[in-house]
Amino acid sequence: MSKITFLGAGSSVFAKNLLGDCMTVPALQDFEIALFDIDHDRLKDSETMLKNIKKNLGSTVEINSYTDRKDALRDAKYVINAIQVGGYEPSTVIDFEIPKKYGLRQTIADTVGIGGIFRSLRTIPVMMDFAKDMEEVCPDAWFLNYTNPMAALTGSMLRYTNIKTVGLCHSVQGCAHGLLESLDMPTDNVQWKIAGINHVAWLLEITRNGEDLYPEIKRRAAEKQKTKHDDMVRFELMLKFGYYVTESSEHNAEYHPYFIKSKYPELIDRFNIPLDEYPRRCVNQIADWENMRDDLVNDKDLTHERTHEYGSYIIEAMETDIPFKIGGNVLNTGRLISNLPENACVEVPCLVDASGVTPTHVGDLPEQLAALDRTNINTQLLTIKAAMTGKKEHIYQAAMLDPHTAAELSIDDIIAMCDELIEAHGDWLPEFK
Amino acid sequence: MSKITFLGAGSSVFAKNLLGDCMTVPALQDFEIALFDIDHDRLKDSETMLKNIKKNLGSTVEINSYTDRKDALRDAKYVINAIQVGGYEPSTVIDFEIPKKYGLRQTIADTVGIGGIFRSLRTIPVMMDFAKDMEEVCPDAWFLNYTNPMAALTGSMLRYTNIKTVGLCHSVQGCAHGLLESLDMPTDNVQWKIAGINHVAWLLEITRNGEDLYPEIKRRAAEKQKTKHDDMVRFELMLKFGYYVTESSEHNAEYHPYFIKSKYPELIDRFNIPLDEYPRRCVNQIADWENMRDDLVNDKDLTHERTHEYGSYIIEAMETDIPFKIGGNVLNTGRLISNLPENACVEVPCLVDASGVTPTHVGDLPEQLAALDRTNINTQLLTIKAAMTGKKEHIYQAAMLDPHTAAELSIDDIIAMCDELIEAHGDWLPEFK
Amino acid sequence: MSKITFLGAGSSVFAKNLLGDCMTVPALQDFEIALFDIDHDRLKDSETMLKNIKKNLGSTVEINSYTDRKDALRDAKYVINAIQVGGYEPSTVIDFEIPKKYGLRQTIADTVGIGGIFRSLRTIPVMMDFAKDMEEVCPDAWFLNYTNPMAALTGSMLRYTNIKTVGLCHSVQGCAHGLLESLDMPTDNVQWKIAGINHVAWLLEITRNGEDLYPEIKRRAAEKQKTKHDDMVRFELMLKFGYYVTESSEHNAEYHPYFIKSKYPELIDRFNIPLDEYPRRCVNQIADWENMRDDLVNDKDLTHERTHEYGSYIIEAMETDIPFKIGGNVLNTGRLISNLPENACVEVPCLVDASGVTPTHVGDLPEQLAALDRTNINTQLLTIKAAMTGKKEHIYQAAMLDPHTAAELSIDDIIAMCDELIEAHGDWLPEFK
Amino acid sequence: MSKITFLGAGSSVFAKNLLGDCMTVPALQDFEIALFDIDHDRLKDSETMLKNIKKNLGSTVEINSYTDRKDALRDAKYVINAIQVGGYEPSTVIDFEIPKKYGLRQTIADTVGIGGIFRSLRTIPVMMDFAKDMEEVCPDAWFLNYTNPMAALTGSMLRYTNIKTVGLCHSVQGCAHGLLESLDMPTDNVQWKIAGINHVAWLLEITRNGEDLYPEIKRRAAEKQKTKHDDMVRFELMLKFGYYVTESSEHNAEYHPYFIKSKYPELIDRFNIPLDEYPRRCVNQIADWENMRDDLVNDKDLTHERTHEYGSYIIEAMETDIPFKIGGNVLNTGRLISNLPENACVEVPCLVDASGVTPTHVGDLPEQLAALDRTNINTQLLTIKAAMTGKKEHIYQAAMLDPHTAAELSIDDIIAMCDELIEAHGDWLPEFK
Repeated sequence: MSKITFLGAGSSVFAKNLLGDCMTVPALQDFEIALFDIDHDRLKDSETMLKNIKKNLGSTVEINSYTDRKDALRDAKYVINAIQVGGYEPSTVIDFEIPKKYGLRQTIADTVGIGGIFRSLRTIPVMMDFAKDMEEVCPDAWFLNYTNPMAALTGSMLRYTNIKTVGLCHSVQGCAHGLLESLDMPTDNVQWKIAGINHVAWLLEITRNGEDLYPEIKRRAAEKQKTKHDDMVRFELMLKFGYYVTESSEHNAEYHPYFIKSKYPELIDRFNIPLDEYPRRCVNQIADWENMRDDLVNDKDLTHERTHEYGSYIIEAMETDIPFKIGGNVLNTGRLISNLPENACVEVPCLVDASGVTPTHVGDLPEQLAALDRTNINTQLLTIKAAMTGKKEHIYQAAMLDPHTAAELSIDDIIAMCDELIEAHGDWLPEFK
Repeated sequence: MSKITFLGAGSSVFAKNLLGDCMTVPALQDFEIALFDIDHDRLKDSETMLKNIKKNLGSTVEINSYTDRKDALRDAKYVINAIQVGGYEPSTVIDFEIPKKYGLRQTIADTVGIGGIFRSLRTIPVMMDFAKDMEEVCPDAWFLNYTNPMAALTGSMLRYTNIKTVGLCHSVQGCAHGLLESLDMPTDNVQWKIAGINHVAWLLEITRNGEDLYPEIKRRAAEKQKTKHDDMVRFELMLKFGYYVTESSEHNAEYHPYFIKSKYPELIDRFNIPLDEYPRRCVNQIADWENMRDDLVNDKDLTHERTHEYGSYIIEAMETDIPFKIGGNVLNTGRLISNLPENACVEVPCLVDASGVTPTHVGDLPEQLAALDRTNINTQLLTIKAAMTGKKEHIYQAAMLDPHTAAELSIDDIIAMCDELIEAHGDWLPEFK
Repeated sequence: MSKITFLGAGSSVFAKNLLGDCMTVPALQDFEIALFDIDHDRLKDSETMLKNIKKNLGSTVEINSYTDRKDALRDAKYVINAIQVGGYEPSTVIDFEIPKKYGLRQTIADTVGIGGIFRSLRTIPVMMDFAKDMEEVCPDAWFLNYTNPMAALTGSMLRYTNIKTVGLCHSVQGCAHGLLESLDMPTDNVQWKIAGINHVAWLLEITRNGEDLYPEIKRRAAEKQKTKHDDMVRFELMLKFGYYVTESSEHNAEYHPYFIKSKYPELIDRFNIPLDEYPRRCVNQIADWENMRDDLVNDKDLTHERTHEYGSYIIEAMETDIPFKIGGNVLNTGRLISNLPENACVEVPCLVDASGVTPTHVGDLPEQLAALDRTNINTQLLTIKAAMTGKKEHIYQAAMLDPHTAAELSIDDIIAMCDELIEAHGDWLPEFK
Repeated sequence: MSKITFLGAGSSVFAKNLLGDCMTVPALQDFEIALFDIDHDRLKDSETMLKNIKKNLGSTVEINSYTDRKDALRDAKYVINAIQVGGYEPSTVIDFEIPKKYGLRQTIADTVGIGGIFRSLRTIPVMMDFAKDMEEVCPDAWFLNYTNPMAALTGSMLRYTNIKTVGLCHSVQGCAHGLLESLDMPTDNVQWKIAGINHVAWLLEITRNGEDLYPEIKRRAAEKQKTKHDDMVRFELMLKFGYYVTESSEHNAEYHPYFIKSKYPELIDRFNIPLDEYPRRCVNQIADWENMRDDLVNDKDLTHERTHEYGSYIIEAMETDIPFKIGGNVLNTGRLISNLPENACVEVPCLVDASGVTPTHVGDLPEQLAALDRTNINTQLLTIKAAMTGKKEHIYQAAMLDPHTAAELSIDDIIAMCDELIEAHGDWLPEFK
């Protein structure tokens, strides 16, 4: 019996989506689904929920919970990772509140930026532990990483372990259609091509019946920017740099030095930027959990329709050898994107089938897009270097190279802020020298 | 109405396969199929045959013959190339008979080797003409090249024209299963990976339910080699170099200096090598044509089942955006195979969908396989250089670098033979200085 | 008679150094020295000065002034470029004053930054004209470029013309010794290695008798930073990023987002940053010119000792075939610095001899240094793209990607400022759309 | 006191040249010269000889012999390697006689070819032992390798040890002048450029006062080929492939499949090929040793003039920081020669100074030269693979990929010959499976 192990199974919504998806796939009906989480209550909840779904879907998978990580991983063929280290409290609160004291505001803080750096620093060691376990008990398993910061975590796995890893996000597959829908343009017969780095990948081509849609998209976008809407940062990036980016406006607002600027406070309103968005979402989620629990865990009639998350499609393609195409996060080995550094983690079209995840060759990005991506890669590579060397100086460098942090703060403030963050995160971080 | 143009449509069998395949595909029912050949009789025959198939399949494609090449190509969305330049007579006869006078024996002569070189030299100029026409009347069309020598022709198109080109062969898709069947091994649940250069691509992985099949394959192959069979050269290559090659024994016999050796005449029998195989096939084909014509052209009830040729699947994938995987011949740009030269034409897994043919990154071939491929690439690159510069010295160099030619003949004989071939081919070749 | 042509010969000090140097070299005594400048008065002055030096050195070179550029270039073997386009007035004043209105302060403005961008934009077209002339009248000449912005100008020459070009600066050869002297450390037997991009190249190694000097250097530098001195920005960069940079503190202050920050005005004093340094120097130079003229032009006894400028050493090495090593600016073709983009202009050790300027392979820079250089390369590549496409959007992108500009200004202000600069420079710029 | 260690110091002539050279260099007068050889008699002879030279040159170096290798290497700053493993008897005799039984004739057998393969296989393990010692007692020393087969040995050191290594040969520095002299052409003011692989590097450029000398060289060479002379193979290669090769005719005769062909026995005379040249030289050397011993060892007045061997110039350049240019053998890391494999050992212009040996970037070789080099690299890479994996199959593959071996013998004969060679060499080889 083949086995899919889900690390961080206590994330009930995500477990529902990924594993519910798997239960709808004929080729996966003989699989064991192994659930693991360090929060045993949430683990139990997810197990209950998934067993309900299984019953209602008539699936024949076998669902088991594990409290020992190695047991959960033993002989797994696929490992899905959706963990979060440090949680809303204390970690997310720290990641937002300390920078705020220095005048550095954030929206999501899960990618680059000061929050992304510290989220990486506390998560990479856990990933390395996963890899050590896997090298022992399931060395041939595919590791599907959903945990952020995607580039730093996936890059660390690929550079410093032998585990076959691909990083996955849902910002690629819906990008083109989402853009067209938001501009009231038809979405049938649309061809698109996306590449870059996670959360800052670019819609390089978008055509319909062979016709380039960008001129019309930009015309409508310029019009829409005259009103207030939820995607103003992305539209601004497209109008200034020529291409649409995969991640949302609230994310991209903090990846660049252009939007959250203490010297230009009016930009927050002008571009409709939801500062502190992620902690607000966390608070709401926590508050809503009892309601949600009723919907998810306590609803015996709960069922599931397959989502667009890549996970189940990847496993299905590997099992059936019917090719599937994803936007996957992989190392830039062989310079798939030829004007980005070779040790960057890039998001490129990949072919998935029984031979695994095989990245395709992209070539050069347009110069301005490569440039923007390089500014984020700078921080990612230094963050990985900090995590793997244990040296504080590389944490400082990661932060000093972050475009938003560097634009807002002086070197002294950056270093003081990093030191304060290291102190506040305490045992959630390894020791740095 | 979208248009598929078939160049060399007089090849009735091939036209039946490729275009018959297209007629079975729902997504292509509104297409025009445009037939072109310089042999108007054969063109007419193919048209008749295809119209019968259309009727019997109930297809709604529109089939037209053209006697003007530009008209045939105008506004094409796809161009399939299956031409042959010079034919059995005079060209193939010359390619075999003149070398034979020098003691240089061949089997197929369509890839590298002295025959492959001259076949390239007379075909590349025609391809350049096609490209010039296409740049004028259908600059965005995809060019699916089936004509050999695959690497030299496809490489020339990709390096010296702007036409989107992929080279296609049927030696990849059947390789793994064919090998297993020939050794009475099961073929279900088999995963495989192939990369290299056309006709000398390598079965790099073959597993079944995760288990490496090569040990058992080699055990059985070693046993089978004790008897006489049709695939002895390939088995010998596998037993000595560790991997199975895509093209048949009669082809590979002449790509390497190991099998057709005047000093070891016994190897012909020992490895069951069919010298002069290709002209023999041509003679038989010509002789059988009237019978075959009855079967193909005159049979009003002729129908067709979809084959495994890549052509129709590629067009379908581009039209439907449902991904398909091929072993395609593309330039090694970005060093898809990292230990082969960047300007080589390589055969690698490619993803096909609405975004076109996108090659995947392979990495290093095992050292010995890269080495064998480099010996053939040497000749291919010099052949292209000869064709594009019009210099005889590069023809000589292409021949001197061919492993089989160089093993058998002295430099003087190679040059004399090349001169005699240039003379004999006359106007089928451009002028060389 | 071999010929060295000096473009911008009216820069008397620079002409004295470069050409005075040449007059001291035995191997160059038979050369013609051809002077060209659009300012005929200054040209005349330089000629007078150089002829005095010639007489006093007993040199046998032949010195001629030309008022026709093609005549000056005709049959040149070496062309030294030291032009400045637009001068102090109007261009430098514009480059400083308009940004200042937007709150964007600069020090030198000749590299990247908003001033560097516009200096490139007005100079690249002139360089392209030089190249056109040279391709006609001296296609084999070596072009030694001393004009800034080095990377954008040299990169444009190397990417868009066929002229053999190397970019030269004097910030490499004195870097290591200058650092040691400033810290009262001995300079004999010191080995060093420098690579990066012009003005942001890094002292990667500095050893004395095999011992790494960096620990002691950093100890003393940290001590010296407690006092006020002239090199505080560079010391801060070294203490934070681990390596010493080639260009001075007043330059590096504006290449990074760390030092000139409107939100932290105290940094100007703290790091002793001379805002508006370059225009102040220009004003002084203009004011002093009459005095200087007496010293240079009117002093019949003027003589010259060979300086450390690379120019005469390069020409000598090419003439004598005795190897000389320079830090030269060349395209990163073949990824000499493997973690910088291939189309960047990098400053790396080059071997000079009769075979010309041959760059050496450097490999990866330390991650944090590559990162810092990439932030400047971003602007350089977009500036070149703007110059070669004539599109305003790429000017805006170059400016938006400049780390200092992006840190200080909003997108709207950046664009408004660019538009104002385009307007103000008028005919000194080509037309942008 | 800095130390130069000479491994294989019993090679008196070579020790005289390399170390005699060092004694003439002012910068090396304070050095210890440490001699090591496993043949203690020859070691004593070399010591005597060198002490005489020292006295007569008035040098102040300190010369010591060591019988313990680690003692000899301890704290060395430079290590010169000139060992030979297995000697004339038994190894060289075996390398020639066994292949001869199979009809495979050789001339020198020290590079590629069957003799080169086995010479590599018995020498690489000794080199690995050297490296292990050096990593322990002199990890920062530069290792100057003079032992052949150059590419396989130097490549092994560079790929599998941490020792700073460069491979040196004297075939580069004299190539251009030697060619001109042999054709009665002037040699002053000649510029040349050489790159490729050791013994098959190519004179890519040769100019005099800017004029390409190749047309005249080829005219004279074609004329000279009408008479019998000592360099006929090289001239033939130049006339057919367009460029002159660095190593002599007797070497190149066996690197290619064109000259020693059992089917064309007349080529031996026609190209004046000295079969069995190397063993003949060995026999003569052994016979002459007593006479030579009188000249070298017993001549108390023996003195020395500096030769053109690179060794002393490299050490001088590293000590004085005055740049020197060599043709050095280094890994093709970063693809210095862009159309050769990245793990090949290439011979390219290198800059030597206090920063060590820094290779320069060459770019593409002309296609036909890259092709010829690739055929030899194939064998070199498989030989290294055989040595490092201990697998017989890779020995066979190395031999099957050797162009000369493959041209002459069948696979069965190649394998039988390899097995016989493995057997005959006995303990001089490690065990292969």
